[in-house]
Amino acid sequence: MSEPKRTQLRRLPDRGSHDRETISKILDAGFLAQVGFSVEGQPFVIPTLYGRSGDTLYLHGSAASRMLRQLEKGVPACVSVTLIDGAVLARSAFNHSMNYRSVVAFGTARKIEDAGLKVDALRTISDHLMAGRWEDVRPPNPKELKATAVLEFSIEEASAKIRTGPPHDEPEDYELSVWAGVVPFEFKAIEPVSDSENPGEVPAYIQRWRRQSL
Amino acid sequence: MSEPKRTQLRRLPDRGSHDRETISKILDAGFLAQVGFSVEGQPFVIPTLYGRSGDTLYLHGSAASRMLRQLEKGVPACVSVTLIDGAVLARSAFNHSMNYRSVVAFGTARKIEDAGLKVDALRTISDHLMAGRWEDVRPPNPKELKATAVLEFSIEEASAKIRTGPPHDEPEDYELSVWAGVVPFEFKAIEPVSDSENPGEVPAYIQRWRRQSL
Repeated sequence: MSEPKRTQLRRLPDRGSHDRETISKILDAGFLAQVGFSVEGQPFVIPTLYGRSGDTLYLHGSAASRMLRQLEKGVPACVSVTLIDGAVLARSAFNHSMNYRSVVAFGTARKIEDAGLKVDALRTISDHLMAGRWEDVRPPNPKELKATAVLEFSIEEASAKIRTGPPHDEPEDYELSVWAGVVPFEFKAIEPVSDSENPGEVPAYIQRWRRQSL
Repeated sequence: MSEPKRTQLRRLPDRGSHDRETISKILDAGFLAQVGFSVEGQPFVIPTLYGRSGDTLYLHGSAASRMLRQLEKGVPACVSVTLIDGAVLARSAFNHSMNYRSVVAFGTARKIEDAGLKVDALRTISDHLMAGRWEDVRPPNPKELKATAVLEFSIEEASAKIRTGPPHDEPEDYELSVWAGVVPFEFKAIEPVSDSENPGEVPAYIQRWRRQSL
């Protein structure tokens, strides 16, 4: 990752960071990315899963996907990952906020053509969501692999923003009789629902899987 | 909203919809938008809260916000809202999926200048996240209102995508001894944490607030 330019932190810089470890930690906690790219001046933002290895994010989808077909041209792209941790309720409307962790990353993508590297990348995406699943399932056959496009997105520049803790009110507002505090959010995997046909036993890696962040 | 063009549903059209009611329902269930816009060919995707009234989304932030200052120029923009409902675990890697509800909306924004309309829009955003909060807190004073930019984003075109239900496997894969099914996700507000200073009683509208979708 290079030095900031697109990610210059203009507002509330105390919330912002270019620290690589902070950024990686947020990317590893989340699993849903919003990918932005432009087609003839029109921005598109499309949700997708991802996996991470170093400064590379792996994206995948149908070989016919409009998003992937645009990204593989190497156009400038932006990936946004946001984890919402709570609503911050202040005594004034103005000082309301959210607790969150977010990353905005800039870079370009390219298509992975090599079948072996494609499978490796798909495994990285699978492991990112749920460790243990990949080795349990039937791997992609050549036809399925051909129907799947896999891209590596190189993060050239990224920034993280984090807000935690209680509301910050104006000194005179602490006298108001308005409840103030934080309402935390919880995101988690709940009880698995087995398929109606021959589902078998829920394996241990799924039973103990509790994805804590979106 | 006009007829589709940017939102032509190319893949899995059975999952897609241009139905206005479906789109509004997803927008009302969520509260976090990812807003895409371009600056000199570089796409940006920035997370933000929103409120909705008809085909208009209200966005707000600091008057110094780079995102809002770009959007208020009336540049083409894209708003993406995604609710993740569960991991769909098939018997083959290829047929894994997610259950989700998502909206991608295209349009342009303009700044609301009138102080009264600004307050109305801020209230719409506040009510969208938590009904009852706005009338309980100190409203914005003229200085705070000046420091806040409020934009109305007119949805010109939008599409929804929804996936629900169990995995769909290849006929021959049902014989495999691989657990298949759905692991649902749950997103909710949990026990409020009162501010350390003069927080008062947690009001009923917060106690009963259980935001079920991100």
